[in-house]
Amino acid sequence: MIPGGFPEAEHRARLAACQRAMAEAGLEALLLTTEPELRYLSGFLTRFWESPTRPWFLVVPVSGDPVAVIPSIGVALMARGWIRDIRSWRSPDYRDDGIGLLAETLRECTGPRAAIGLPSGPETHLRMPMDSYHRLATSLGARRLTGDGGLLRRLRMVKSGAEIERIATACAIAGRAFAEVPALVRPGLSLAEVFRRFQIEGLRQGADWVPYLAGAAAPGGYADVISPATEAPLRAGDVLMLDTGLVHAGYFCDFDRNFSLGSPAPEVARAHARLVEATRAGAEAARPGATVADLFHAMDRIVTGGAGGSDAGRLGHGLGMQLTEAPSLIPEDHTVLEPGMVLTLEPGIALPGGKLMVHEEDIVITETGMCWLTSPAAPEIVQIPA
Amino acid sequence: MIPGGFPEAEHRARLAACQRAMAEAGLEALLLTTEPELRYLSGFLTRFWESPTRPWFLVVPVSGDPVAVIPSIGVALMARGWIRDIRSWRSPDYRDDGIGLLAETLRECTGPRAAIGLPSGPETHLRMPMDSYHRLATSLGARRLTGDGGLLRRLRMVKSGAEIERIATACAIAGRAFAEVPALVRPGLSLAEVFRRFQIEGLRQGADWVPYLAGAAAPGGYADVISPATEAPLRAGDVLMLDTGLVHAGYFCDFDRNFSLGSPAPEVARAHARLVEATRAGAEAARPGATVADLFHAMDRIVTGGAGGSDAGRLGHGLGMQLTEAPSLIPEDHTVLEPGMVLTLEPGIALPGGKLMVHEEDIVITETGMCWLTSPAAPEIVQIPA
Repeated sequence: MIPGGFPEAEHRARLAACQRAMAEAGLEALLLTTEPELRYLSGFLTRFWESPTRPWFLVVPVSGDPVAVIPSIGVALMARGWIRDIRSWRSPDYRDDGIGLLAETLRECTGPRAAIGLPSGPETHLRMPMDSYHRLATSLGARRLTGDGGLLRRLRMVKSGAEIERIATACAIAGRAFAEVPALVRPGLSLAEVFRRFQIEGLRQGADWVPYLAGAAAPGGYADVISPATEAPLRAGDVLMLDTGLVHAGYFCDFDRNFSLGSPAPEVARAHARLVEATRAGAEAARPGATVADLFHAMDRIVTGGAGGSDAGRLGHGLGMQLTEAPSLIPEDHTVLEPGMVLTLEPGIALPGGKLMVHEEDIVITETGMCWLTSPAAPEIVQIPA
Repeated sequence: MIPGGFPEAEHRARLAACQRAMAEAGLEALLLTTEPELRYLSGFLTRFWESPTRPWFLVVPVSGDPVAVIPSIGVALMARGWIRDIRSWRSPDYRDDGIGLLAETLRECTGPRAAIGLPSGPETHLRMPMDSYHRLATSLGARRLTGDGGLLRRLRMVKSGAEIERIATACAIAGRAFAEVPALVRPGLSLAEVFRRFQIEGLRQGADWVPYLAGAAAPGGYADVISPATEAPLRAGDVLMLDTGLVHAGYFCDFDRNFSLGSPAPEVARAHARLVEATRAGAEAARPGATVADLFHAMDRIVTGGAGGSDAGRLGHGLGMQLTEAPSLIPEDHTVLEPGMVLTLEPGIALPGGKLMVHEEDIVITETGMCWLTSPAAPEIVQIPA
């Protein structure tokens, strides 16, 4: 088995569901090119995707097993998994970086007028040079590269028990790291040093790696939630926010915690309590049959009085092999909640002076409602002695 | 200034070179969509790219300043940099995720029959949904989206002094972490635990984060260099290899070190010495006017006797804002070396039983030759008491 993969039965169940959806959509094959897409069906887990150099392909026929068309550097790892048909070339190859082999495979797996699906819709992209894409399209004859109608997006939204277990473990690891923050942080430390200490703590608590950490520290709330850390020292009165996506066995958590250095200003204390109230309202609305938009509105009523959100653009999202996945908690997302969907609840609240605070928890939809994957924060913001 | 950005003068120098190349190529604008492309010209550094949800665009006209067309969540950070024209929308938007605003901007910046360049060639991709791309293409009238002829790839290959300084710092941090490995590792620890300890050490030594760590541990060499770590315990006689890309101020190092748990087998000791000899031969061949292919051949002669490489596909690559960048050290890459190019020298050697060993160092081309950015390894493999 590929380390971090799943038993063959899990990948076969995913494949069967995928092929049913492909048949309904009239697709004779899917062509997958990105890390989570390949991993979803093959179990191929490696940090080597950090290198943008080599293209990787998985061809999924509407019946029969997938074919991996990959650089030779990856064959040994792929061969540890359940995919038996592995075709490779020595990449990088400036004349033909796998496109000839890929086209041959697609021609073999499909009829002469086949529709071949590429993942399409929000959050997708095609991970290959555009010149390769155009060359591929012309070498397929009357076959047509088209969108997959979002079928892979819909399948990936509902997690299996084994996937949920991994996300829950990632959440527990981050929870233990957040619990150590008051012991790791004091006024005078730079935010950059706090970031280092928090990442070290995440690893100590068992994370495989820490792909994502954002945050901020400023008095009375922060201006921004995506900036990198600076060398500016933390000061009494600051609100410190840390938002992490750390990985266990290929699955992310994604949540944050706020801290007050010393006693919080009254408006900060109120904002924090309001944010916690909003996540609880989101959780109460979360059950099979409700929609993603319902969760948005349940939280938006509390943080904006129903004004319809903020510049962040959404109040939460899906979570799994990626830090953020479908769906998006926006008024326009009418996806009906199903057991197995893993979501973040992520309300934000505006504060005086153009500042804001955000709060985030992770949940899973169950047969009867929801379960917290994080230990939800208390309304009172945690204080760090200052 | 954006934390981790550069002074405006540096970005303006990059822009001027870019616009000269665009004029030569007959491009009225460039459209950039990926993290390193945007950052190269704007200085926009954030780990938020870990989220695949939102598209980000930078429009670079052939004269005048770039225009950022970005989700509203990023405006506060972008506004700390030197780009003044920032246009935004609230993303995610399922009806139009920035494409209308982007098309309007491109129409404003170019004539009605303009050629608009997208980065093309090896290691590029377009970071937006394909449906958005097709919608964009049709909304541009007679304007044409085309390849950039690799101009951005060529510009990014030559680093400025400020960039080289950051890469050198990242190398020094990783070097200090590697020096601690014998104190961190002992037989009986799992490779997964070794990975955690090494990442912690990288952070302790000053890394901002550790996006990449691969490695292996096995007797007499390893089968693979991209697999994730497992819970299998290290044993006396294992060769342990750790290959890291850690980040300082937005720039990577990328090199590895091999260790022997206890005395190395004679073939392991010989292979290590040969790998070190190969990197030295590569370094001796490295000077302005030589080609990338020359470096390949200088190393390949030593590791395969001139057979032409291995399944890894290349013997090194460029390095900078990404773990791997252009060029690729392959026989077909005839790029002429110039001062400021940062490269890895990464020979691999086959061992009995289908095993291999790899070794990697980082260098920069200077006016007269090259400088090591790493402290090159000695021929004798480092032993860890076992």
